[in-house]
Amino acid sequence: MKEIIAVIKEKMIDPLSVVKTEPLPEKTIREKLAKTVREARELKIPTVVIFEGWGASGKGYMIEKLISELDPRGFKVWSIGNASDDERRYPMLKRFWDKLPSAGKMSIFDRSWYREVSISRVEEKISAKKLERRFCDILEFEKQLADDGCNIVKIFLHISKKEQGRRFEALEAFSATSWRVTDDDRKRHKKYDEYYDAFSEMVECTDREYAPWYVLDAEDKKTTAAAVCRIVLSSLEAAIKAKKERAPELDRKDDAIDKELAAQTHSCPIPNEVRTDPGIVPLPIKPLDSYDLTLDISDEEYKKKLKSLQKELFELHNRLYNKKIPLVIVFEGWDAAGKGGAIKRLTSGLDPRGFEVVPISAPTPTELSFQYMRRFWTALPRSGHIGIFDRSWYGRVMVERLEGFAKFSEWTRAFDEINKFERTLTESGAIVVKFWLQIDSDEQLRRFNERMNDPDKQWKITDEDWRNREKMIEYHIAVDQMLQLTNTSFAPWQVVEANSKKYARIKVLETVVETLRARL
Amino acid sequence: MKEIIAVIKEKMIDPLSVVKTEPLPEKTIREKLAKTVREARELKIPTVVIFEGWGASGKGYMIEKLISELDPRGFKVWSIGNASDDERRYPMLKRFWDKLPSAGKMSIFDRSWYREVSISRVEEKISAKKLERRFCDILEFEKQLADDGCNIVKIFLHISKKEQGRRFEALEAFSATSWRVTDDDRKRHKKYDEYYDAFSEMVECTDREYAPWYVLDAEDKKTTAAAVCRIVLSSLEAAIKAKKERAPELDRKDDAIDKELAAQTHSCPIPNEVRTDPGIVPLPIKPLDSYDLTLDISDEEYKKKLKSLQKELFELHNRLYNKKIPLVIVFEGWDAAGKGGAIKRLTSGLDPRGFEVVPISAPTPTELSFQYMRRFWTALPRSGHIGIFDRSWYGRVMVERLEGFAKFSEWTRAFDEINKFERTLTESGAIVVKFWLQIDSDEQLRRFNERMNDPDKQWKITDEDWRNREKMIEYHIAVDQMLQLTNTSFAPWQVVEANSKKYARIKVLETVVETLRARL
Repeated sequence: MKEIIAVIKEKMIDPLSVVKTEPLPEKTIREKLAKTVREARELKIPTVVIFEGWGASGKGYMIEKLISELDPRGFKVWSIGNASDDERRYPMLKRFWDKLPSAGKMSIFDRSWYREVSISRVEEKISAKKLERRFCDILEFEKQLADDGCNIVKIFLHISKKEQGRRFEALEAFSATSWRVTDDDRKRHKKYDEYYDAFSEMVECTDREYAPWYVLDAEDKKTTAAAVCRIVLSSLEAAIKAKKERAPELDRKDDAIDKELAAQTHSCPIPNEVRTDPGIVPLPIKPLDSYDLTLDISDEEYKKKLKSLQKELFELHNRLYNKKIPLVIVFEGWDAAGKGGAIKRLTSGLDPRGFEVVPISAPTPTELSFQYMRRFWTALPRSGHIGIFDRSWYGRVMVERLEGFAKFSEWTRAFDEINKFERTLTESGAIVVKFWLQIDSDEQLRRFNERMNDPDKQWKITDEDWRNREKMIEYHIAVDQMLQLTNTSFAPWQVVEANSKKYARIKVLETVVETLRARL
Repeated sequence: MKEIIAVIKEKMIDPLSVVKTEPLPEKTIREKLAKTVREARELKIPTVVIFEGWGASGKGYMIEKLISELDPRGFKVWSIGNASDDERRYPMLKRFWDKLPSAGKMSIFDRSWYREVSISRVEEKISAKKLERRFCDILEFEKQLADDGCNIVKIFLHISKKEQGRRFEALEAFSATSWRVTDDDRKRHKKYDEYYDAFSEMVECTDREYAPWYVLDAEDKKTTAAAVCRIVLSSLEAAIKAKKERAPELDRKDDAIDKELAAQTHSCPIPNEVRTDPGIVPLPIKPLDSYDLTLDISDEEYKKKLKSLQKELFELHNRLYNKKIPLVIVFEGWDAAGKGGAIKRLTSGLDPRGFEVVPISAPTPTELSFQYMRRFWTALPRSGHIGIFDRSWYGRVMVERLEGFAKFSEWTRAFDEINKFERTLTESGAIVVKFWLQIDSDEQLRRFNERMNDPDKQWKITDEDWRNREKMIEYHIAVDQMLQLTNTSFAPWQVVEANSKKYARIKVLETVVETLRARL
């Protein structure tokens, strides 16, 4: 601990030294900042600026100065307080995903995802292991944003205990400002030393090149605000420079690799560029073509089992609800593999207020302007609820990969991102069940034709389905890779033999029921 | 009261009689429903289905049956519980706006905006007058949705006190379901008669042709569910028929009127079709060209006043925050009238965590698929906060009217919708301040040219600005109409003489300060 305690002091920057690097009038700097923000906007670079620090360290003042010349259309300020009861029913990071900037925008956070961690470290004395887990989630989150091109600046405003005391007194002396000092503030002031350690740990554990901390000595407000503007400015300038210089080259490289890969795709199941976290070792899984698709079930058995499984699921859902465990069920599979029918049988006995089917189709332009995982994070089920994804984040490594919607660098890192996402879910208490519904090519053709010939089902089949069918071999390879790389102990795949719809539906229900039974 | 008490009984429908109108097997009805929902989706008809009724009256079961054959991509179920602390900081209806269906979708509500009203009528004994006000807000809300083409079905499930008691007992008898009966349920069961009156009032006061109530005798769950499916089905069929029959004709009528109006626009300031609520009489307001645009202020006076006004505003903002009053400030005005500069001076002394500038530009495709007012409702400030709209809902009766983005029927009813919206805001406790920044044509031209010649300001001027300038006469007429029709006692317009930027900024600050002073 001793070494960590020194971190804040060690990393502390004298704001005056920052100001001296660009000794221009404040107004000039702020106008330059406004211009640079506009440039970042045109280049579609999203920016996250985080303000953490002591109570009364001047976060509001810093933000006021930072935004004073900015076009209000380009940024948004988020004040992060305690999570609401409803927000507590989701993984910790969920409430931040809908506050992230879209391409070219800036989100400024007055306290952030670090708030909860430091408070619970001091107030609830959470263990070092739990703390590490949370920092790990946060770093993974920030890494994903940075990989997506987001520019991240984290500022910690430091003041001494004495200075904090003085500022609280000054605020309390006037009726117009006294309410700003809350009981929590006073309590935390008394625990200054403990918080000092917690903040040191935080800065030490989460300072990364892609999301660096700037610890500022914030005793002098004006100088600190001037330093903040320059720090954000130079971070934006660096991001702009990097984007301008690197982008075309990288895109070219991506293209070349994609073409090469396309040529080798049959002989090279897993590209070398796929790096998964050494801490997550996928479990072995049989290749798709090794499943026995003749498996079937008689009508009577189907009806009997369906009824009893639905009844049991209804009861398990009640217990799930009581224990406030969220359940995430993913359905993937070939077109016409019977996802809709299986989902219907799964849900038809359930209280519709306790589950939600989330159908995933091509992202909208708005969704595309955010990091890829955002639309899945924001659609997660709350505790006690069931979220059923009809298609999912796995689109990244299937359709987006094969149709070229995702760049090579994007889909190759997606395996790791997905594993970590699912680990975050399960570590926050969720159960994750993933189904791949497997049918063979003949069965798919039969079903496509059936749909074409039934006026009530024609809407279910599109030209795209036929186009996808032509690429079945490529998809087969991509799916096998996906299964191999994302079949983890915490979120294993269930391949369902689905040539017989009845067999598949029962297997899906059985799997969910068994998983819940084991957990409850 | 006696007459009202009978309403539930009077309006009660025997579900069996509904089922008899379409004596088909349930599966057939539900498949027909699924098909009809798809048709409504293609025709872009949004649908709202509300379930209200007694605890344990089977709302969950009804929804389960209703959605059992529906494509999950077309609907969403919303369970409405108590408002969260944060939700309570907004006007009551705000939390429902982001749960409304976009064009072609269906939102199913398990309890709805009626929940809070009936609970507070019984538990808090709110006055008849307050109740009427809330019903009025709700009806206005439903009317706006209906006017926008939304199909609204409101179902009330009725069971007797005895039946409710029996159902609670049955639920309590099993551990898997006993938790479903909450203390609130038991409390409300005891107050059955009071709730009966409250529900009767509710149905009586809010039963409208555009949003009818169906009060169902729900003692027999299965029959009731069958009736619900048929009610929703026939409502959808009627909406589809109406849309198919009326749409082209109405559009033609709209076009003809628009053309006619365009021809007469100079001589016909306010079209006859504009109907405003007789309960809202706008105050007289001087026409735009009668303001003295030579008004100016010296540099010293400007600096002195600016400083003292910003200081006072800072203090008033603190008091506003303490009293939890939301403040909505609207900025409208000619292009280059100085809205941005005025907003900057208004906010530069304020804590950035307590206000937000909401820049309004052309709606995105997603926004266009919802009712027009949605994006403003969802951007309202919470209590104690300041929401500054840089352009606003008034776009409907200016740019959207003149560029033909809004149909004749849409913009003519918008005056009334806007007045009612602002009344809802002020009645919920908000302060609404609206500015029109007035400059003359010469001054605008000067500023446009200045922007063109300054490389740092070129981004501020677009081709659209020049195009709008060509239509200045039409805009002038539209703006004068807007001021006349929406200058209400609760949300009056402030026309600001803005040829002198300094004068305008001071007047804006003075107006806000005076308004707050008067209120606090």
